[in-house]
Amino acid sequence: MSKGLPKRSEDYSQWYNELVKRADLAENSPVRGCMVIKPYGFSIWEKMQAALDQMFKATGHTNAYFPIFIPKSYLSKEASHVEGFAKECAVITHYRLKNAPDGSGVIVDPEAKLEEELIVRPTSETVIWSTYKNWIQSYRDLPLLLNQWANVVRWEMRTRLFLRTTEFLWQEGHTAHATAKEAEEETIQMLNVYADFAENFMAVPVIKGVKTPSERFAGAVDTYCIEALMQDGKALQSGTSHFLGQNFAKAFDVKFASKEGKLDFVWGTSWGASTRLMGALIMTHSDDEGLILPPKLAPIQVVIVPIFKNADQLATISEKASQLKKELLAKGISVKYDDRDTQTPGYKFADYELKGVPVRIAIGPRDLENGTAEVARRDTKEKKVYPMNELVSQVETLLQDIQQNIYQKALAFREANTTQVNTYAEFKEVLDNKGGFIFAHWDGTAETEEKIKEETKATIRCIPLNNEQEEGICMYSGQPSWQRVIFARAY
Amino acid sequence: MSKGLPKRSEDYSQWYNELVKRADLAENSPVRGCMVIKPYGFSIWEKMQAALDQMFKATGHTNAYFPIFIPKSYLSKEASHVEGFAKECAVITHYRLKNAPDGSGVIVDPEAKLEEELIVRPTSETVIWSTYKNWIQSYRDLPLLLNQWANVVRWEMRTRLFLRTTEFLWQEGHTAHATAKEAEEETIQMLNVYADFAENFMAVPVIKGVKTPSERFAGAVDTYCIEALMQDGKALQSGTSHFLGQNFAKAFDVKFASKEGKLDFVWGTSWGASTRLMGALIMTHSDDEGLILPPKLAPIQVVIVPIFKNADQLATISEKASQLKKELLAKGISVKYDDRDTQTPGYKFADYELKGVPVRIAIGPRDLENGTAEVARRDTKEKKVYPMNELVSQVETLLQDIQQNIYQKALAFREANTTQVNTYAEFKEVLDNKGGFIFAHWDGTAETEEKIKEETKATIRCIPLNNEQEEGICMYSGQPSWQRVIFARAY
Ligand SMILES: [Zn+2]
Ligand SMILES: [Zn+2]
Repeated sequence: MSKGLPKRSEDYSQWYNELVKRADLAENSPVRGCMVIKPYGFSIWEKMQAALDQMFKATGHTNAYFPIFIPKSYLSKEASHVEGFAKECAVITHYRLKNAPDGSGVIVDPEAKLEEELIVRPTSETVIWSTYKNWIQSYRDLPLLLNQWANVVRWEMRTRLFLRTTEFLWQEGHTAHATAKEAEEETIQMLNVYADFAENFMAVPVIKGVKTPSERFAGAVDTYCIEALMQDGKALQSGTSHFLGQNFAKAFDVKFASKEGKLDFVWGTSWGASTRLMGALIMTHSDDEGLILPPKLAPIQVVIVPIFKNADQLATISEKASQLKKELLAKGISVKYDDRDTQTPGYKFADYELKGVPVRIAIGPRDLENGTAEVARRDTKEKKVYPMNELVSQVETLLQDIQQNIYQKALAFREANTTQVNTYAEFKEVLDNKGGFIFAHWDGTAETEEKIKEETKATIRCIPLNNEQEEGICMYSGQPSWQRVIFARAY
Repeated sequence: MSKGLPKRSEDYSQWYNELVKRADLAENSPVRGCMVIKPYGFSIWEKMQAALDQMFKATGHTNAYFPIFIPKSYLSKEASHVEGFAKECAVITHYRLKNAPDGSGVIVDPEAKLEEELIVRPTSETVIWSTYKNWIQSYRDLPLLLNQWANVVRWEMRTRLFLRTTEFLWQEGHTAHATAKEAEEETIQMLNVYADFAENFMAVPVIKGVKTPSERFAGAVDTYCIEALMQDGKALQSGTSHFLGQNFAKAFDVKFASKEGKLDFVWGTSWGASTRLMGALIMTHSDDEGLILPPKLAPIQVVIVPIFKNADQLATISEKASQLKKELLAKGISVKYDDRDTQTPGYKFADYELKGVPVRIAIGPRDLENGTAEVARRDTKEKKVYPMNELVSQVETLLQDIQQNIYQKALAFREANTTQVNTYAEFKEVLDNKGGFIFAHWDGTAETEEKIKEETKATIRCIPLNNEQEEGICMYSGQPSWQRVIFARAY
């Protein structure tokens, strides 16, 4: 039921939190910062996984699995990696519990102390490159194109369901190549895969770009990302793809013999997308009544609700509904027929609105007389009555329509909330009153970037790919600049 | 290449270890006891997952995800559970590292000590039932039929790839019911799902049974299992299904209001199967040349190898092979065409034998002249030459044949290695000289079971379901017995 869901305009943040819980997507667990992904939420994530996995395989990647634990010393092997990832992490120091002498429960057995502590992986570059060392000897072993679906842990102080949790689920691709060029092409290819997935499955328009040096992945030469804009005007990074250069190959001594027999370090990439995508999906489309899901990722695409006064009516409606369900299923459309007699149609309508089911079909006694049904679309809430024999084709068209429409709506929102500014005063005004993506000139220094961040909490989201070159002056320092970059406050 | 794979008859254990590594299934990781599942091995596991997942969904289950960490105190809440699982586990005591003052790397930050230690889940009953407490109020919330695919950690002292590793991948089902009867039916249903999967996908015959009290899951009222027999005469438990009674509901205070408004504790089940299944699959079918995979789980079902002396021949063969590949793919058969010119056909033959590809098709210059191809099946190594236009239907039949044949072969092996004994002397003789499943009378006491285990390392694998009732005397104690149970040495 959507009753009591806070309004976005009043408290966007609270609206999000409540929506995630009430739509049965996820909830906080008894373990601080870790979430429980509830069945309905998980079934959306499964659809995301399936689509991404297929895209990874279509681009030549294979799945594998690497250990969840990383020896502490591994983190130190790549100098900047340790700075980024050795800080807030789960540290395993012991491998046994024993009964407390006073019978009060169990305690850590002090005799079972590990010689070297283990870290629960925050990301797997180190353990994977230490393995690649044994797998790669010659150019014949390259490229190595692997991905893994896994859980990772980063000890977050302030957590929010899906957006920032101590444990989260993700996929991490790790590839190894013979040349810098090939690795760079892989990096861009996977950035494009993420953008394709975001736009064509999630219906979330994204901007592809490269991060500034201070926002790079720890250990990368270049970090590319896709950035989406949420309805509150804040940016959300939805996938990153890193060109690692030879950094991890050098840290783990991974060399290969070229065709000519010359030894050189291997070139690497890594790229990841996580359950954060769920946050992007929820925040881009949903409204004050609940979730709005793109048909391509909706676990239930169509729900059929009977409207009846007695068992006889229900029986007649059920006959029609079952036939309709069968025909829709045959078209590959997922359908639920909800004939529970413990809930009213009104309750069901509100509940499926809350859950974001794209299309709702209601069949009542009058429809039986007229040979019709009422079709409601979740995105615009428009309702239309169609003859029964047109329903299947109407629903097919409608699902495509909704997928397109919510993308276009999000795109229009982003365009309306993208602003060019030329002065720092203008910048701060737009940031505080309108939000969104702000294109502004920047002098290219980390100092300026840091100062703007300190003063406004806005960060450079990225320098868009194929960015227009335009002479100007940095809005903060007045120094010369050759392009505008995208600033925003971000999740 | 299979060269140098130890023979099963000489060193079965070494044969297994080498096979797992050389067939690119898995290897030991730098983290003690944790494995790396290599791409080829993982692609078999993915096929297993897909088949099982479909079976779980067909029986009404939905996936969800629960946290990897369990507060230490949770383990103590169910009295026998803590005995079974609180012993050897990974304990997280700190949540931060910091730079060592002497610049030597990173050290654990003593100030970031957790108030309560966290355990990396060895199994998730405790964290799940603590969540179910909030999800279940009334009979309307039941049954709750959830599953999760996850990694778990049990600190094993002696590990073997797939069979016993510190971290392993598995699925764990956790269901909640209003009545004992319903929970018991669920337990048996999932046991049947595992048996169905083992026999019809893995082609591994299994015996369904119930564990003796001393072999029960810690916290269960009854533990059911499927037991398979490996080629060295040792048993391997391949899936377990537990009737939990109200034990976890009581430990976590999970009550529901019945239709009549009466409050009662919820009834539970849990059931799991893990990457151990990979061990069962490998050991049941494979031979001294390498893996033998059931077609239903083989990542590559058919490989086509061209035999050529020059580029012209290769071009002509490739044309035929591509056409054939297309036709096989259209039938839903997975095919690889290996036209590498860096390896000889002999090398390729040996390599695909090692990898267990069920069907190999070789096309050479003579085949081109005759319009034929040579088809070899991996299981029997039989080769036949077929006209090109018959190939697709022959391969289809052959794949079904292989699936059946390796099952029948494993079944015949199990039958030949199942023995009834009446005396303890006979028991020990069979155990040492023949191995296998031994049906013997047992007095039903834990004392006798324990003594037999101490003296012979054989355990009671299970009491078969619908076991024949037969009066007799315990082979060990001479006490009366009403049925035979299955003893074996086991993995
Ligand atoms: Zn960005
Ligand atoms: Zn058993």
